[in-house]
Amino acid sequence: MATINLRPEERIDSLGKSGRQIIQNQEEFCFSLDAVLLAHFPRYGRCCRVLDLGTGTGVMPLLIADQAAHIEAVELNTAMADMAARSVALNGLTERIVVRQGDYREIENLYPPESFDLVLSNPPYRPVAHGQVNSRPGVARARHEFTATLAQTVRAARYALRFHGRLAMVHLPERLGEIIVALATNQLAVKRLQFVQARAEQVPNMVLLEAVAGGAPGGLQVLPPLIVYGVDGAYTPQVLRYYQ
Amino acid sequence: MATINLRPEERIDSLGKSGRQIIQNQEEFCFSLDAVLLAHFPRYGRCCRVLDLGTGTGVMPLLIADQAAHIEAVELNTAMADMAARSVALNGLTERIVVRQGDYREIENLYPPESFDLVLSNPPYRPVAHGQVNSRPGVARARHEFTATLAQTVRAARYALRFHGRLAMVHLPERLGEIIVALATNQLAVKRLQFVQARAEQVPNMVLLEAVAGGAPGGLQVLPPLIVYGVDGAYTPQVLRYYQ
Repeated sequence: MATINLRPEERIDSLGKSGRQIIQNQEEFCFSLDAVLLAHFPRYGRCCRVLDLGTGTGVMPLLIADQAAHIEAVELNTAMADMAARSVALNGLTERIVVRQGDYREIENLYPPESFDLVLSNPPYRPVAHGQVNSRPGVARARHEFTATLAQTVRAARYALRFHGRLAMVHLPERLGEIIVALATNQLAVKRLQFVQARAEQVPNMVLLEAVAGGAPGGLQVLPPLIVYGVDGAYTPQVLRYYQ
Repeated sequence: MATINLRPEERIDSLGKSGRQIIQNQEEFCFSLDAVLLAHFPRYGRCCRVLDLGTGTGVMPLLIADQAAHIEAVELNTAMADMAARSVALNGLTERIVVRQGDYREIENLYPPESFDLVLSNPPYRPVAHGQVNSRPGVARARHEFTATLAQTVRAARYALRFHGRLAMVHLPERLGEIIVALATNQLAVKRLQFVQARAEQVPNMVLLEAVAGGAPGGLQVLPPLIVYGVDGAYTPQVLRYYQ
C-alpha cells in the first residue's frame, strides 16, 4: 500500500473484510452503518459505471471497488473530498475510483447525461427545519439538507442514469412517501425496498431502496426487514457478513 | 337478533369476538384476513362518519360498528350489497350502518363531497392484465380491477374525505410505489404503514396504510411488521386478538 500523509485529527480505520483502509476525521464525519448497508444493497451483476452522489470520505466506493468497472465519486466538502481521494490512493485504487470535489446540484457541469448504470446516494436525511443541528459543520451538512435537498438529489441521479439504470438510496422511513413521489416525478420507479430495524419487533430506523430510471410502475419487491442486533446485543449474521 | 331469509348457497358465519354474524356465499366472495386486519388498522378515537368503498358482504362495517357514529357502505355487486344489507339487519345495526348498491367511480352521485372522517378501502388488488382471473365473477371482480382501478379508488376516497380526514387501505406490497403516487396526486399524504408477513423472515404479502387528506408530506410512521403465523403454525397473538 502507498504511504499517505495524514493531517491533524485524521486517523486511518480498517474497512473490515474488504481489507481496505479509510482516512477519517471525527471532527468532519465518520461513516456509519447506513453506508455499509447501502453499499451492499444493489446487485452489481451487470453493473459497470457507478456514481456515488455525496461520497463523504469515500466509504462506499472503497467497499464496492471490486464490483464495478469504474466509480465516480463526487463530494461538495473540500476536506472530505481530499480525504476520499487520499484513501483511494492509499488502497491503490486510483485507476478505478475517481473522486471529484463538486456540487451535484449542478451535475450538468460535472458529468455527461445518462452516463452511469448505477447511482448510490446516502444523502442528508433531514430537512433543515427538523431536529437539532450538529455543531460540527461537516456532520451538520451530512445530516441536514443544508446543501442538497431530496428533490435535488433525485434530480441529479436521474440526470446521471442511463435508461433503465438504477438508483440505490438509504434514507429515513418517515420520508418514504416524499421519496417515492420525488422518484416518480423524475421517472424513477421504486423496485426494491428493505427496512432496517435495530431489533426485531422495533420500528425501522432506515430504509434501503432501489429505483429504475424509466421503469414501469408496479412490481415493487419488498424484502424481509434487515435486523441489525440479535437478542444477545451483537450484530446479526445479516450485518456481520459485511464486516467479517 | 332478527330472522333473515337466506338464499340458496348462502350461509351465516360468526364474526368472532364481535359477537356478530355475517351472511356469505362462497360462489360470490367470502371475506378474508385482509379485511379483518384493515378494519382494525385505523385509530377510531375521534372518528365519527366512516365510508367503506366496496364493502363486499359488509364485513368491515360489522366489525367496527362500535367504533363509529355512522357508517356508509357502498357496493357495486347487487347480490353482495343485498347480503351486506341483510347482515346489517341480522345484527340489528340498521340505524348505524347504511348499505348502498352503487358505483363509487361515480361517487358524486352517491354522497356529498368531504362528508366523511374516515374512508376504508379493501380494493381489487391486481390490474386486469396481471395473474389468473378467478372463474367466479364475484371473486374475479373483488380481486382484479375489472371495476375500479387504484386511481379511481383513491379519487373516490379523496372526494369523500373532509380536510385532514383519513383513508385506510390494504393492498399488495408490490404496488406500494403506485399507491403512494396515486395518493399524492390526490393530495393524500401517507402517514402510517405496516407490512403483513405470513411468517417472520418471509417477504410481506400485504401492506396496510393510512393517508391524510391535505396532510403535509413527511412524518410517515412505519410500524413493525405484523406477523400472521407463529412457529407453531397458529395465529400470532397480534392476529388472534381480532378473532378471540
